[in-house]
Amino acid sequence: MNSFLKYKKSAELAGSPLCVGLDVDLDKIPGHFENAPNSIFEFNKEIIDATKDLTASYKINFAFYEQYGIEGLKALDKTLSYIPSNIFTIADAKRGDIGNSSKKYAKACFEAFEFDSITVAPYMGSDSVKPFLEYTDKFVFLLALTSNQGSFDFQREIVREEPLYMQVIRKSMEWASEENLGFVVGATFPQKIEELRAIAYKSLFLIPGVGAQGGDSRAVIKANMGGPALINVSRDIIFAGEGEDFAAKARERALLYKELFSA
Amino acid sequence: MNSFLKYKKSAELAGSPLCVGLDVDLDKIPGHFENAPNSIFEFNKEIIDATKDLTASYKINFAFYEQYGIEGLKALDKTLSYIPSNIFTIADAKRGDIGNSSKKYAKACFEAFEFDSITVAPYMGSDSVKPFLEYTDKFVFLLALTSNQGSFDFQREIVREEPLYMQVIRKSMEWASEENLGFVVGATFPQKIEELRAIAYKSLFLIPGVGAQGGDSRAVIKANMGGPALINVSRDIIFAGEGEDFAAKARERALLYKELFSA
Repeated sequence: MNSFLKYKKSAELAGSPLCVGLDVDLDKIPGHFENAPNSIFEFNKEIIDATKDLTASYKINFAFYEQYGIEGLKALDKTLSYIPSNIFTIADAKRGDIGNSSKKYAKACFEAFEFDSITVAPYMGSDSVKPFLEYTDKFVFLLALTSNQGSFDFQREIVREEPLYMQVIRKSMEWASEENLGFVVGATFPQKIEELRAIAYKSLFLIPGVGAQGGDSRAVIKANMGGPALINVSRDIIFAGEGEDFAAKARERALLYKELFSA
Repeated sequence: MNSFLKYKKSAELAGSPLCVGLDVDLDKIPGHFENAPNSIFEFNKEIIDATKDLTASYKINFAFYEQYGIEGLKALDKTLSYIPSNIFTIADAKRGDIGNSSKKYAKACFEAFEFDSITVAPYMGSDSVKPFLEYTDKFVFLLALTSNQGSFDFQREIVREEPLYMQVIRKSMEWASEENLGFVVGATFPQKIEELRAIAYKSLFLIPGVGAQGGDSRAVIKANMGGPALINVSRDIIFAGEGEDFAAKARERALLYKELFSA
C-alpha cells in the first residue's frame, strides 16, 4: 500500500496523531531483562502489544540499535517485523549522501528493511534527497527545524531574508508532492510550527520533542492548526515504568498523550 | 593510539594522501564472485591486500553495506577487521542527530565498530556534533562543502555575508582542535579548497570526488597548498578491472593516483 495512504488509515484507526518512538537503551529497560541486545526486541514486543491500538505510528531511531552493532540491528529487524502491518513505520535514520550513495541508503531502508518512511538530512541538497523520493510509494520526512538547541547554529541563519529551514521547505516542496514529502519540525518551538503551516499547510509534519525534550503538547496541537501531523513521544512513554509492569505503564502514558492530543 | 597521530603515521608510511573508498556494490564486482553479500568481503580482502602499502586510509561508506541489510553489515565488520591496524579508517556514515542520539551513533562507530574517524552532518548544530568530538582520541570529519551538484542548494547560500559552508567551518572550529576535527571538502571545486585553506590551514581535509565524480587531482593538490589532506578515490580504483585480475588492476590504478598526488 502507498505509504501516505497507510499513514492516513493508521492515524484514523488510532484516532490520534501519536507516534511512539522505540528508542530503546539497555541501560534504561527494567531490571528483569537480561543486559543483552536481544532484550531490546523482548522489551519492544511488550511495548508494541500494549500500545498498538493507540498509536498511528512507530518510529525507530537507528542510533539506538546501531550502538549495539550487528546484534542491535537484528533487534531492529525483529522489532520492525513485529509491528502490525497496518501501522505506519518511520526509519528515523537522518541519512543523506551524494546521489549514488543516497540511492543505497534508500534501498537499505525501503528494501533491506521495509520501512514506510525515512527521515533525511537536507545539507547535501537535491540529489542527496531525490533517490529517497524516487520510491514514490514511500514517504520522506526532510529535517527542517529540529527540536534541539543546536537548531540555532545553522537552521535559523538568515538566507534570502528568511531562516534556512524555511528555504529547505520551500525548495524541497518543488521536488515532490505532499504525498511523498513531509518535514521534521520540533515540538520545542510551537510558534514556529504555526509559521511553517503558512507555507506548507498540507504537508505531513513529524513533530518530535514532546515529553523528555520539553515540548508542550497542547501548544503544539494549537500551532499545528489541524494540519496532518505525527507527534512523537519516545522516552516518556516507553520508560514510563521501571518494573515488570512497564508495558501497562507505557499504555497508561500513551492513553494520556492520546487524550492530550485530542484536547 | 590517538587517531590523528595514526593518520599522520599512516600517511607518512604510504608516502601519499591517498584514501581508498571501499564502496562495494554487488552489481559491479567481477563476474567470478557469487552474487551474495559475503562476496563483498572477499572482494575487499583482495583489494586491501593489493593496495595496503599504497594508501594512507580506507574509507567505508555505510550506504553500500546497509543496502544489503544485516548481511551487508557483517561484511562491513569483517572488512574493517581485515584492514591492517596501522592504517587510518574512516566510517563514512554522515550521521547526526539530537545529542542523546548522536551519542549512540558515536558509540556505534567508535565502539561497536572500531573506526578511527567518522563523517558527520552539520545541519542539526553543535549538540549533534559534540558527542562525536567527546571521543577525544578519535577524529571527526564534518561535512562542509560536498562534491555533488546538490551542494549548490543550501551549502552555498549566503549567511552573514559568506557561504553557509564557511559558517559551518568557522563555528565548528570553536568546538574542537585540529587534532579532533577536520572537514569534508569536495574535489570537484578546487578553487574552493584554496579559499577554505585560508580559514582552516591546519585542518585535516577529507577530499572526495576525484575520479568517477570528475575531480581533477592536480588542481586539488595545488589548491590544497600542502595542508593535511586525504584524497579519496573509490570506484575508479576498486572497479579498475572487471576480470579475475581486478586486484592487480586496482593496484596499478592506486599507483597511478599516488604518482598524480605527488606530482
